[in-house]
Parts: sequence; structure tokens; C-alpha cells
Amino acid sequence: MLRLFPEPTARLAVEDVYRDVFFPEQRERPYVLINMVSSLDGKAVVEGKAGSIGSPTDHTIMRNLRARADAVMIGAGTLRAEKLTLAVPENLARGREACGFDPQPLAIVVTETGDVPLQTNLLGSLPDNLLVLAPSEIPGERLAALSAHASVEVVPKEKASTAPEGFGARRAEPGARLDLARSLEALKERHAVGLLLVEGGPALNHALVSAGLADELFLTLAPKILGGVRLEALTILEGPAVPLLKTEPKLISAHLSDDELFLRYALSSSARSS
Amino acid sequence: MLRLFPEPTARLAVEDVYRDVFFPEQRERPYVLINMVSSLDGKAVVEGKAGSIGSPTDHTIMRNLRARADAVMIGAGTLRAEKLTLAVPENLARGREACGFDPQPLAIVVTETGDVPLQTNLLGSLPDNLLVLAPSEIPGERLAALSAHASVEVVPKEKASTAPEGFGARRAEPGARLDLARSLEALKERHAVGLLLVEGGPALNHALVSAGLADELFLTLAPKILGGVRLEALTILEGPAVPLLKTEPKLISAHLSDDELFLRYALSSSARSS
Repeated sequence: MLRLFPEPTARLAVEDVYRDVFFPEQRERPYVLINMVSSLDGKAVVEGKAGSIGSPTDHTIMRNLRARADAVMIGAGTLRAEKLTLAVPENLARGREACGFDPQPLAIVVTETGDVPLQTNLLGSLPDNLLVLAPSEIPGERLAALSAHASVEVVPKEKASTAPEGFGARRAEPGARLDLARSLEALKERHAVGLLLVEGGPALNHALVSAGLADELFLTLAPKILGGVRLEALTILEGPAVPLLKTEPKLISAHLSDDELFLRYALSSSARSS
Repeated sequence: MLRLFPEPTARLAVEDVYRDVFFPEQRERPYVLINMVSSLDGKAVVEGKAGSIGSPTDHTIMRNLRARADAVMIGAGTLRAEKLTLAVPENLARGREACGFDPQPLAIVVTETGDVPLQTNLLGSLPDNLLVLAPSEIPGERLAALSAHASVEVVPKEKASTAPEGFGARRAEPGARLDLARSLEALKERHAVGLLLVEGGPALNHALVSAGLADELFLTLAPKILGGVRLEALTILEGPAVPLLKTEPKLISAHLSDDELFLRYALSSSARSS
């Protein structure tokens, strides 16, 4: 692994990438990192799945970031698309414990509809370390079913119709209409989440970035050209045009391993000035 | 401008990026470079247009590449979307002349339908330096109209139905069904094009990459998050899934200027071994 930026160039072990990075605190909400992998042609989700785009090195770096986070969040659509885990492996869990943290970050799934296949698709998270963010409008039986396997935090919907009219709305993706600002405040206040890692999907990323709630983007650029017709191949962020002033990404660091680039960008003013 | 890779890190003037790069020759066709700019979220064309995604530095580097090429090619859809030029500025034209080349690279527009707004949208190319690649099936009056403003090379269509079924076919984009292998052979044999620079659009890029006809990808990663609903925001390459074996991108170099990354990838075996 080669650190290309900032200078000077340096060699380091994959395990050490982002290990000693400093993340500032936000006052009212968690400091939010988004981590995604994309092909050179911008494809981040192929037939619903993101798992096979990055290399084993990318997966290691994803786990490095999880090991730093108080909580790891995904949208329910991402969980519906494939089996996955939000946990860190045993050695990283021991490292967290040794530093006084919970061995595992809190696993969070955001849902708009309550259709969250926790039992079949979410691996490695126990009910007492699993939180579902859902609106009060979801059917009672779904709420009851979710409550059997996770804590459920009921959060309000947005008042204004700022929901994406494209992908997000049509697919009824989570995050598109939940009030994410209020949701993040609840995570900080009631669940002590200071550092939140978000791992997609594209509609949740879009909602966070558009609302100015994302502080940093960790973008892995995989050395692949995937193609794929629309609706089967999604970019890291799907939704209406993002106001340019909402984000002025600034490159914080760049690492290279086997033609795969690991890029860290500041998105918010908090991140840019830290 | 900072060269990040290959090591060692070096500062250089924007004008010098890619100036002394070596491009190998192909035997039967031109050596093909694709140059595109994309946002961090993979958007390369917004409402049909690509011109405003890259910075002035990106535009300078685009012209550096043009100055190296025997010909610059685009798809007709790209020309229909906005006014543009395929020419190099005066100082670069003089430099080419001093080295025994034509002052301007040959401008090439690929069309499937003959709908090519040369007079209104293509700036800075004279008829004797302008070539349209078109299939014989286009209406006679369109062929005649094009011939008044450009040379027209009539090229065959592909026999097999390998045309993309998604974006390319629906939008009747050029390149989707022309026989690009035969077209490139004609460019080499009849127009002495040894080095061809392709500047999109996404359907033409897809057709070239899928056919194994692209040797290198120059990808500018602009520090922007654009969003944009589908069909208004395209990636650098639009079409069906690309067979993985058709391309194993290898990073040749990476430059950085004001948070904008300039990445050069080898795509073909000729490029990888050079």
C-alpha cells in the first residue's frame, strides 16, 4: 500500500490505513463518514449488490473504518439486495475493547417501509447491538416483528416534500423521506453515536449529502470498467441534482494498492477546516 | 500540478502533463485513447453536456492530449447536445506544425443517423479537416448535406446484433451499431490516423471498450458531487455489462491539481505491456 497524498509518498500496511486519522466532533449530530466503492465508470451497485466491486484490500479498509466508528449504518434496500455484515472481525473487536469501546460498532438499518430482512440477510449483529430507524407510519405488525430482533427508534418524516422524485421515490428507498437530521440527532443524544459510518445505498447517500449531513467521503476507485444498463447499475449517489454549494469536496488523502485508489474527501465545512 | 504516481512525487506545469508520454502503435488500427471527466459520484454528462464538469486545468489537459493526437473523435449525440470544438489553440497548433504535423488534428464525428449539426455546433474545424463516419443506410439528402461540409467515410454496420439493448439502442446513439473495428481500420489505412483521441459520449465509449478497441483511459475525477436523476445524468460509459476480460485497467499515472485528479489507465494488452 502506497500513500500518494499528502506528500511525501510512503509505504504502509493495509491494516494501518486510516488507523490514526483524527475525526472531529459535531455538536448536534454524529460526525458522518460515507464509504463507497465505485468502478472507473462510476458503477457502485450492480444488480443491487456492491460486494464484489472492491478487492480484498478494499474490504480490509472498510473494516478499518468500521473499527473506528461508533455505529455503521445502511439503508434497508442495501440489506434486501444481499446478505452482509456490519461487524468487525474478532481481532479488531478485541482492539476496540482494549481501548474501552464496545467490541462491535452499533449496527443501524434505516427503513422507510419496515421491510428489513434482519434475520435472513444481516449476519453477525446481535439484537442488543442492532438499531432500526423507522417512521411511525409503518404497519404495526412490521414494527412488532422488527422489535423482536432489534431496538427500534421511531423517527419523524420530513414535512416539506424535498424527497427525490427519481430513483429514491420510485424505489421507496429508505432515507429518501425520513427526517435524517432529526434521526442523526437522536443517534447522538440517545445512543451516544459520535462517529457514524454510512455504507450506502445510493439513495441514503444522496439524502445525507443533499441535506448537508455528510462530513467525509471515502471513495474506493476500483480498476474495473463494468458498464451495465440503467436501473441495474447505480452510482454511489442516486437522486436529483445536488446543489453545488452543499458540498465542495476537498481531497484529504490518496492511497494506492494494485491499481485500486483509496480517496478520502472532506465534504462539510467541519471536515474541511479540521 | 503534482504528479502523485509514479513515484517520486514531482511538481510540474499543467502544460507539461502528458507532453512527453510515449504512445505505442497498433498494427491494424489507431492506438485509441479515451478522455473523460467524471464527478466523484460518477456523473460525466449532465443534461447532455459534459463541458462544465471539469476545471480550466482539465480543459488544458484535454487540449494537451489533442495536441498529441492525429485525430479527435466524438459521437454525434455529444455534438447535438452542445456547441464544442475539437481543435487545439493557436500555440499548440504552431507546436504541431514545427514538428512536421498538421496544425490541427483531424476532427471526426461518428453518426448512426446522419443527424450531425456540423454548421451550428462544431466550431473551429474546416471542411478539409473534418471527417464524418456514417453507415450507408442514412438518407441520401443527409449524406449530401454532410458532404458539403466534411469528408464522409461510409462504413459498414455490424452483422451480429451486438448492439446495446439499453441506453445506446434507445437513444439511437452513434457507435452502438456501426462496425467500429472496420471504421478504425479505415481511419488508419485511408486517413493515416495512428493516434486517435476519443472524447465520448458514453455510448461511443461503451462500444469501443466493449469491442476491446480502447487502449487507454484518461479519467479526470472532478471534486464535485452532482447527483442528477437517471437519463439526465450519465456515467462515462453507458451500455450493457462489459465482459470483465475485455479490460483490466492498470494505473499508469496520477496527477493532482486543486483537489482534481488526473488518472491515466492502460486498458488493452498493448497499453499494459508498453
